[in-house]
Amino acid sequence: MSRILLTMGDAAGIGPEILVKAAAQQLGGVVVGDVAVLRRALQQCASSVALVQLDAPDEPAPPGALAVWQPPGLPEGLVDEPQGVVSARCGAAAALCIEAAVRALQAGQGRALVTAPIHKEALHAAGSPYPGHTEMLQQLAGGVPVRMMLANAELRVVLVTVHLALRDAIERIDSANVLQTLQISDRALRCMGVAAPRIAVAGLNPHAGEGGLFGREEIEQIAPAIERARAEGIDARGPFAPDTVFMRARQGEFDAVVAMTHDHGLIPVKYLGLDEGVNTTLGLPFVRTSPDHGTAFDIAGRGLADARSLLAAWRMAEAVSALATS
Amino acid sequence: MSRILLTMGDAAGIGPEILVKAAAQQLGGVVVGDVAVLRRALQQCASSVALVQLDAPDEPAPPGALAVWQPPGLPEGLVDEPQGVVSARCGAAAALCIEAAVRALQAGQGRALVTAPIHKEALHAAGSPYPGHTEMLQQLAGGVPVRMMLANAELRVVLVTVHLALRDAIERIDSANVLQTLQISDRALRCMGVAAPRIAVAGLNPHAGEGGLFGREEIEQIAPAIERARAEGIDARGPFAPDTVFMRARQGEFDAVVAMTHDHGLIPVKYLGLDEGVNTTLGLPFVRTSPDHGTAFDIAGRGLADARSLLAAWRMAEAVSALATS
Repeated sequence: MSRILLTMGDAAGIGPEILVKAAAQQLGGVVVGDVAVLRRALQQCASSVALVQLDAPDEPAPPGALAVWQPPGLPEGLVDEPQGVVSARCGAAAALCIEAAVRALQAGQGRALVTAPIHKEALHAAGSPYPGHTEMLQQLAGGVPVRMMLANAELRVVLVTVHLALRDAIERIDSANVLQTLQISDRALRCMGVAAPRIAVAGLNPHAGEGGLFGREEIEQIAPAIERARAEGIDARGPFAPDTVFMRARQGEFDAVVAMTHDHGLIPVKYLGLDEGVNTTLGLPFVRTSPDHGTAFDIAGRGLADARSLLAAWRMAEAVSALATS
Repeated sequence: MSRILLTMGDAAGIGPEILVKAAAQQLGGVVVGDVAVLRRALQQCASSVALVQLDAPDEPAPPGALAVWQPPGLPEGLVDEPQGVVSARCGAAAALCIEAAVRALQAGQGRALVTAPIHKEALHAAGSPYPGHTEMLQQLAGGVPVRMMLANAELRVVLVTVHLALRDAIERIDSANVLQTLQISDRALRCMGVAAPRIAVAGLNPHAGEGGLFGREEIEQIAPAIERARAEGIDARGPFAPDTVFMRARQGEFDAVVAMTHDHGLIPVKYLGLDEGVNTTLGLPFVRTSPDHGTAFDIAGRGLADARSLLAAWRMAEAVSALATS
C-alpha cells in the first residue's frame, strides 16, 4: 500500500521541526520537502533519526528512517533563509511541495496528504494567488466543493462559512450552501468509518432563532436544507441552539456538528486546548489533514514546537486512508 | 446580617423542587413564594426538611428549616394548577414574588437575590410586559444599564448583546456599548473579590478581523472602546480572536471574557455541561444570580430536577454579597 505524503510547510516555520519530531513515532510516510532544511531540523531537535533521501515518492525506504523526497525545481539555498521570518523563497518552496505532493497523489504514488503549516504572507510574497492550503488544494483537485472540518478526540465540526467578516458570512448562509455542507460531511464521515453519521446542524441565531423571534435564517434557509438532506437519506438533525449543541455532541449524541460560522464551530473545538486538534479538508478526491496551528515563527528553529497536533493529523490520515483504500 | 432572598419561580416548573433540594444544604436564606406549593415540593422530593412560614422576609428562622415568606397578594389556589403546563396564574405569581423580593431588598430586608426559573409564555399570559427576569429587575431597579454574566468554575463571560438576531446584534456592537460592558464588568468583578480584574475582549469576526481583512468592527468600534476603558484604569485587553480567547481564559490568563454575541459567549460556558453554570445580572444595585437553565416543564413535579446550578447560584450570591456588605 502506498504511503502518506507530508509536505514540509514553510521552511522558516516550525513545520520541518514537528515533522522530524513526529517521525520518531515511526508512523511511516514520506516528507515532501528540502533535504537540507530537514537535516537542519534533525540537528536542531537533536534527533537520532536517520534521513534517507528518495528519488521518487513511492520508492521504498527502510523502516524508522525519515524518508524525504525533494521534488524537482525547489529554490536553491532554502536552508540559508533565516528562520522565523517571512520569505518569498520559503513561500515558493512551500507551494511547490504542495503541488508536487498532489501530483504524486494523483499519480497513485501516495494515499493521503498531511500538510505542515505554511505562511500566508510568504505565499503572497512568492506571487501565489492562494490565501492558504484549502484554496490551493481545491484548485489542484479541479475546483471541487470542499469544506473545512476541525476535530479532536471529543468533537468534529464542519464549517459552512470560514474566513469572512461575520456580516458577509451571514449573507452566504443559504439553503444550497448548508445542503452541500451536509452532503460533503455525510460522505466524508462514512469514509472515516462512521457507518450511519448523525449530523447535528447548529443554528445561526441565539436559541436557533426562537421560532423567528431572533432571526429567520433557521426557518428560511437552514431547516429547508436539513429537510432536503433527510430526503436524500442523510441523518441531519436540527437546527439546534448553538450554545448547547456542541456540548450535546461532546456527550455523544451526534457524530459531527455543522456550524454556520468560523467561531461558532472553532470556539468549542479549541476550548479544551489546541494540542491535538486536526484540520481536515472534506470533499477532495484524496484524504488531507493538517495540524490545527500555524507556522509559529516566534519559536521556529529552537526545538520547542509541540508535534502533537501534527501527530494527530498524521494518525487521522493513516486511519482514514486505510479505510478508504481497503 | 440579612439573608439571601430566593424567588420561587414558576410554580408549575422545577423551581420549587430545586429550592427544596438545595435548602437541604442549609445555606441560609428565605424563599419568597407560595407556602402550599413549597409544601408540595417537599412531599414530591420526599424531603424531611421542615417548612417554617415567616411573616416578614427578615423575621428570624430556625437553622435547617425551609424558611418561606409568602408575599401578600399571591393568587389563590396556585397549588391546584397542573405542573408542567403554561399557566397565567403561575406567571402572575412568579412576577409578584420577584417584585416583592426586590422591594424587600430595597427596604434592607435581604442582601442578595437568587431567582428560580420563570416561564416566558406564562409571564406573557399573565399580562407582564417583561420577556424575562433581566428586563424586570432592570425596571424595578430604576432602569440602570445591566449586562448578563454567565460563569462556571472555569470561565466568566459577560455579553455585549443577548437575545437578538445575529444581524441585529452586529448593529448594536458599537464603542459605547462595549465600553459600558467593560465598565460594568470591571466594577462587578471587583465586587466579587477580584482585586485587579484582567478582562479579555473577544472580537466579533474570525481572527478578530485579521487587520480589517475579515471585517472592520474590531478596528472601528471594539479597539477604541478598549483604549478608552484602559484610560479609565480598566485592565481591558484585546480584541482577541474569538476561537482561542476562551481557552486562554480557562487556562487562567484572564479573569473574564467580554463576548460580542450570545453564542460566542455561551458556547464555551456550556461546552463542558450545564450542571453548575450561574447566570448573574451585573449592574443592578443588588446581587442577583440564577441557575443557568429554565423551568423544565417536561420533568416538573417528579422529583428528578438537578439542583446543582441553583446551588452554585446560591453559593455565588452568598459569597459575593458577603464581600459587598463587609
